[in-house]
Amino acid sequence: MLRMLTAGESHGKSLLAILDGFPAGMKVDTDAINVELKRRQGGYGRGGRMKLEVDEVDIQSGIWQGVTLGSPITLAVINRDYKLERLKDVERPRPGHGDLSGAMKYLGSVRAILERASARETAVRVAAGALAQQLLSLFGISVFGYVLELEKIKTTPSVGTYSELKAIRDASPMYTLDPVADKEIVARVDQATQDGDTLGGIIEVRVDGLPFGLGSHAQWDRKLDGLLAQAVMSIQAIKGVEIGLGFEAARRPGSMVHDPIHFDASRKFEPSLGYTRPTNNAGGLEAGMTNGQPLVVRAAKKPISTLRKPLDSISLKTKEPENAAYERSDVCALAAASVIVETVVALTVAQSFLEKFGNDSILEIQSRYTGYLELARQR
Amino acid sequence: MLRMLTAGESHGKSLLAILDGFPAGMKVDTDAINVELKRRQGGYGRGGRMKLEVDEVDIQSGIWQGVTLGSPITLAVINRDYKLERLKDVERPRPGHGDLSGAMKYLGSVRAILERASARETAVRVAAGALAQQLLSLFGISVFGYVLELEKIKTTPSVGTYSELKAIRDASPMYTLDPVADKEIVARVDQATQDGDTLGGIIEVRVDGLPFGLGSHAQWDRKLDGLLAQAVMSIQAIKGVEIGLGFEAARRPGSMVHDPIHFDASRKFEPSLGYTRPTNNAGGLEAGMTNGQPLVVRAAKKPISTLRKPLDSISLKTKEPENAAYERSDVCALAAASVIVETVVALTVAQSFLEKFGNDSILEIQSRYTGYLELARQR
Amino acid sequence: MLRMLTAGESHGKSLLAILDGFPAGMKVDTDAINVELKRRQGGYGRGGRMKLEVDEVDIQSGIWQGVTLGSPITLAVINRDYKLERLKDVERPRPGHGDLSGAMKYLGSVRAILERASARETAVRVAAGALAQQLLSLFGISVFGYVLELEKIKTTPSVGTYSELKAIRDASPMYTLDPVADKEIVARVDQATQDGDTLGGIIEVRVDGLPFGLGSHAQWDRKLDGLLAQAVMSIQAIKGVEIGLGFEAARRPGSMVHDPIHFDASRKFEPSLGYTRPTNNAGGLEAGMTNGQPLVVRAAKKPISTLRKPLDSISLKTKEPENAAYERSDVCALAAASVIVETVVALTVAQSFLEKFGNDSILEIQSRYTGYLELARQR
Amino acid sequence: MLRMLTAGESHGKSLLAILDGFPAGMKVDTDAINVELKRRQGGYGRGGRMKLEVDEVDIQSGIWQGVTLGSPITLAVINRDYKLERLKDVERPRPGHGDLSGAMKYLGSVRAILERASARETAVRVAAGALAQQLLSLFGISVFGYVLELEKIKTTPSVGTYSELKAIRDASPMYTLDPVADKEIVARVDQATQDGDTLGGIIEVRVDGLPFGLGSHAQWDRKLDGLLAQAVMSIQAIKGVEIGLGFEAARRPGSMVHDPIHFDASRKFEPSLGYTRPTNNAGGLEAGMTNGQPLVVRAAKKPISTLRKPLDSISLKTKEPENAAYERSDVCALAAASVIVETVVALTVAQSFLEKFGNDSILEIQSRYTGYLELARQR
Repeated sequence: MLRMLTAGESHGKSLLAILDGFPAGMKVDTDAINVELKRRQGGYGRGGRMKLEVDEVDIQSGIWQGVTLGSPITLAVINRDYKLERLKDVERPRPGHGDLSGAMKYLGSVRAILERASARETAVRVAAGALAQQLLSLFGISVFGYVLELEKIKTTPSVGTYSELKAIRDASPMYTLDPVADKEIVARVDQATQDGDTLGGIIEVRVDGLPFGLGSHAQWDRKLDGLLAQAVMSIQAIKGVEIGLGFEAARRPGSMVHDPIHFDASRKFEPSLGYTRPTNNAGGLEAGMTNGQPLVVRAAKKPISTLRKPLDSISLKTKEPENAAYERSDVCALAAASVIVETVVALTVAQSFLEKFGNDSILEIQSRYTGYLELARQR
Repeated sequence: MLRMLTAGESHGKSLLAILDGFPAGMKVDTDAINVELKRRQGGYGRGGRMKLEVDEVDIQSGIWQGVTLGSPITLAVINRDYKLERLKDVERPRPGHGDLSGAMKYLGSVRAILERASARETAVRVAAGALAQQLLSLFGISVFGYVLELEKIKTTPSVGTYSELKAIRDASPMYTLDPVADKEIVARVDQATQDGDTLGGIIEVRVDGLPFGLGSHAQWDRKLDGLLAQAVMSIQAIKGVEIGLGFEAARRPGSMVHDPIHFDASRKFEPSLGYTRPTNNAGGLEAGMTNGQPLVVRAAKKPISTLRKPLDSISLKTKEPENAAYERSDVCALAAASVIVETVVALTVAQSFLEKFGNDSILEIQSRYTGYLELARQR
Repeated sequence: MLRMLTAGESHGKSLLAILDGFPAGMKVDTDAINVELKRRQGGYGRGGRMKLEVDEVDIQSGIWQGVTLGSPITLAVINRDYKLERLKDVERPRPGHGDLSGAMKYLGSVRAILERASARETAVRVAAGALAQQLLSLFGISVFGYVLELEKIKTTPSVGTYSELKAIRDASPMYTLDPVADKEIVARVDQATQDGDTLGGIIEVRVDGLPFGLGSHAQWDRKLDGLLAQAVMSIQAIKGVEIGLGFEAARRPGSMVHDPIHFDASRKFEPSLGYTRPTNNAGGLEAGMTNGQPLVVRAAKKPISTLRKPLDSISLKTKEPENAAYERSDVCALAAASVIVETVVALTVAQSFLEKFGNDSILEIQSRYTGYLELARQR
Repeated sequence: MLRMLTAGESHGKSLLAILDGFPAGMKVDTDAINVELKRRQGGYGRGGRMKLEVDEVDIQSGIWQGVTLGSPITLAVINRDYKLERLKDVERPRPGHGDLSGAMKYLGSVRAILERASARETAVRVAAGALAQQLLSLFGISVFGYVLELEKIKTTPSVGTYSELKAIRDASPMYTLDPVADKEIVARVDQATQDGDTLGGIIEVRVDGLPFGLGSHAQWDRKLDGLLAQAVMSIQAIKGVEIGLGFEAARRPGSMVHDPIHFDASRKFEPSLGYTRPTNNAGGLEAGMTNGQPLVVRAAKKPISTLRKPLDSISLKTKEPENAAYERSDVCALAAASVIVETVVALTVAQSFLEKFGNDSILEIQSRYTGYLELARQR
């Protein structure tokens, strides 16, 4: 079982994650983790703090001479902007944040809540997910996230190979696959900046190269669709999660939804074992298990809750009306969120992968992976 | 911690759930559980099996003289249609089911998978959720689910008191709050029946009377939005989950999304502590914690995967094309699904409630609940 | 992950266990489970109830045509002596039982506690462990428990093959390996019966045929010694747990404790991979992982808490001194406890085995087990 | 739920622990944590490394202005002796360590195992437990550990108040409560040092001031005796765990074991609610729940596995006989182990305490603690 606990406050010393159960024997590419951390800090519409922080991972445990040991891996991202001890409490809770709900739950300060509820926590989730991607890539599994819609602007994703699409996405100011829509998107962000408003949108993540059999139908809390929904919905500002057709599946008759099953013997040695589906409306999951097709997850991100044009609030002391507090923030963090959703999906898929194939050593997992495909071909 | 494991096959002896961590001292209303079980078997568009089974809960442990003991509660629903031992394996996997994904994962029969992956398992989840509703109702918390859309037909939910709405829903053939749309809905189901097709739709669940402070912002896997998303997405045939505005939140600017915070001293003794919000776009959750407003969850249910007009499949033996197997099924189980989502949400909320208020005895929980509201009012 | 929840009261309808994560494809021998249930009811010194109940397992889910499905397995033992609804509360808490601690924790009746705290719960733990033994035996792993000491009488265990020892144990009135000491033991039990007193003792369990690598050193809660200690100490009336030399290890210098490492190429194809140890003071576990040697666990069982010659207690109502309540009980349940410890150890070892080798299907586990031994030989 | 993951290698950058679920609002005394860290490094019979490292805790998250936030707490202990990257692998596995079992499990280096299996990991468990002690002390609960026996030397613990005993222990070279036996103990350690041998012994921990109701009888994995046994047995070098009389309970008749129940109205306002027991053979736990009496746990520590006078081993490469590798080590770490067992017990008790009383804020817990005692007095 691959377990993760994260820790750290937005303006504290550092963000940390301990990953327990990561297999021994994987060469770790620290630079590749930093690339994802940098992508998380980018995208059009970001504010000033992103310039203050240049996040880099510091691996404090679990590796020796660049290779995982099988012992818990500690990923740390140091806060260059560490100033928590100097910061004051906040008295005017900000709508959309946990300021009010948290202060009431913990009967304490708003500062206690906002420092931890902040999306800055996702820096280490991204680092952990980037590490998970390295594991998955050893087995030919790729996890790819991009922005699909910004507010009401729908993009038309380009079609192409993985590296072509990656190039397009990485050249896009909003991490989309649609250079044409990007212009409209940039203009909309500029407008919102001028208005003191914020913007959200929709993210899509696609996982290719998956074998059958991740997740399980046998118990409610082992279904991979449920695990993905939890992981994605637990990301700050996410308010909706879909798999495959998602809500659209509810709006079609069954004959237009379920994916026929064909067999193509020439593809028998692929992870799909030769089972092909002319459509992939299920998004790669049937009965909570991967079905050899690409996994497709979408997430809806609400606009950032901190608005320069402040919302109505109250003073927690006097209970009198006040403007909500304002802490430096972004206009649009959708591009960043696409990195977060991508890496969180990667981590969840890696957990399921290790659940199926074991988590002691890469050597053993590789032998089992090959062995499993062989047994499944003979099924 | 309230834990649940379920067990049982669709045509096995019985479905069972063990609930560990349910507090002592609650009078259990078995009839009320059976009402939910019956509702789960109803709704327009159901097939023959629903007439065979009249589900009733048998509480095998955890109560004495009608009151919970604090020990694990076993909920059993006996299968009147028990015939598993006589049944044969299935060779033509049905698209949309776990037949293929499961047979490949477990390297065994399709029967092994379909018997457990079947939505019949939800009978005991409904029983467990109905029990959770009784717990919540002791604290003035109500959980109410209904059908919002069938395929492309959007309903306009009636407005009214809880009991008015309940009456409307319970009189509706599809468990909607819109008697006018019901006619269109019934006609659409009739049409689909004729076509050999199936239908899905969208379900909404609303939880009223919640205090602040269920869930937590502090760790990714303690956020109530994530826990709800997992529980709902783990229900058979659910492909999307939303909280509050959900996907619509992604399509609006921040100024149209976040719910201003007001204070109304006259409502200070309500669970909301007097904090009012002119809108509830957040759906009652901010930073993974309840915020004193109604919780609103929506789920997208795909149409039933078993079609009378069969889909393309293959023979697992010969790998040659075949029609998918057909086992007796429904045309539309959306009404039933609304009961399942309602009770699954109730169970998840009850878990969070007990996490906050303890799970030893009702007596102690009541004292803590009152005590907490008092402390929070003084915050 | 193999998870278990149990349920049921001593005089309730039935005892139940749900085992989630048991692999598919194992032929289940129900008779063999019943043999263990019967052994649990036997042994010299048992009272009247054991004659009332003849425990038999009813497998309510998870198997089809005698073979596991991979779905949760429900093991039920029906109480022939079901009378909970007619029973009254107990007002005079019995020392050594949970009567007082539980009534204070749950603020309720003593009946609520004693019905669940009763060792009758172990009936389904034994059933679950007996099932686990069948799994382990597929891989040549045997789990064997016996009584080592009764009160102050120390036995001298016979030496011999597994089946010789089994024959000796199964012929012994107290499940020992020492026919000579048995006479003294029987006399001591007779004396205690006359005195209205009760007796405990020490149990030893030995697991042979284990491969390297169950458990892990990497995290405190994954160490197999810790997991075994929890499982064994959680058995009713167990007050001490040892591994290998146990407390004796504390009383020797290091040079007399640690087991030298030798290598015998002729035994390379055994699960020990040819690594031999002239002693096994570690009891088969080093750093929380199996080391290819037999696992040895010992447990100390206190005498039964219900004495015919009653102990001092008080009335919970009046707080005045009273004799403790007396419910029909045994003089010595040590033989039964040896069955319970044996099966609980078996279940824990099976959990670790499946953690290492996966829990989808026996077919796949067998392939992995062979594959692992090969990789380890090449290490 | 208070969860903990630890990380870090013996010669890595640092040892870390994330504690999730620690309540908000507790003033943290960092110096008091450092006192325990220093105690863990002390005691007669320690080797050179203890002089290299002067452990101090660095709290990297979860506090603001010295007070807990309710967010996860990260405890770090920096390794001054960080040199992992320069270290070589070990080819001659050391008996008693995880060198062989781990290398076979993970199919990798011995270095990978020994760095994590090392008792250096306990530095952060001690820090976490010291924090837990601060929490418990707010409720009048003290946790006190000392050495009871060294090898075959049994001490006679002094009797006195908590602070008297603390003074005696803290003045003792081996952390005993017996200044007379200390002389014999010191001489024995000197002798062992001369012999190149190592020594273990027995530790006792006593928890005073506990209320009723920590732990639960209701499910096997919620019993506090089982949880304590797991936590203690998971400590490096511990081979046995006892509660109360422990193994001695197996050697007495029931009439000499179970603790009579009396009531003393004058002590009604103590956590014991006035229920007194003339003996405490149960060690404060009945049916897996605290019973208002002091909790007593004992642990058997084997001698250190690294001997200057090396044990037989083999070369993992050639499989030829060799002496076991030797890395700088201690002759006796029993005093240190008494600190580790004490703090691990404290952490486990704190987990159970928070399970009973909630883990949001100290303010709320205090109100509930008082409220519970009141309800229990009225039971």
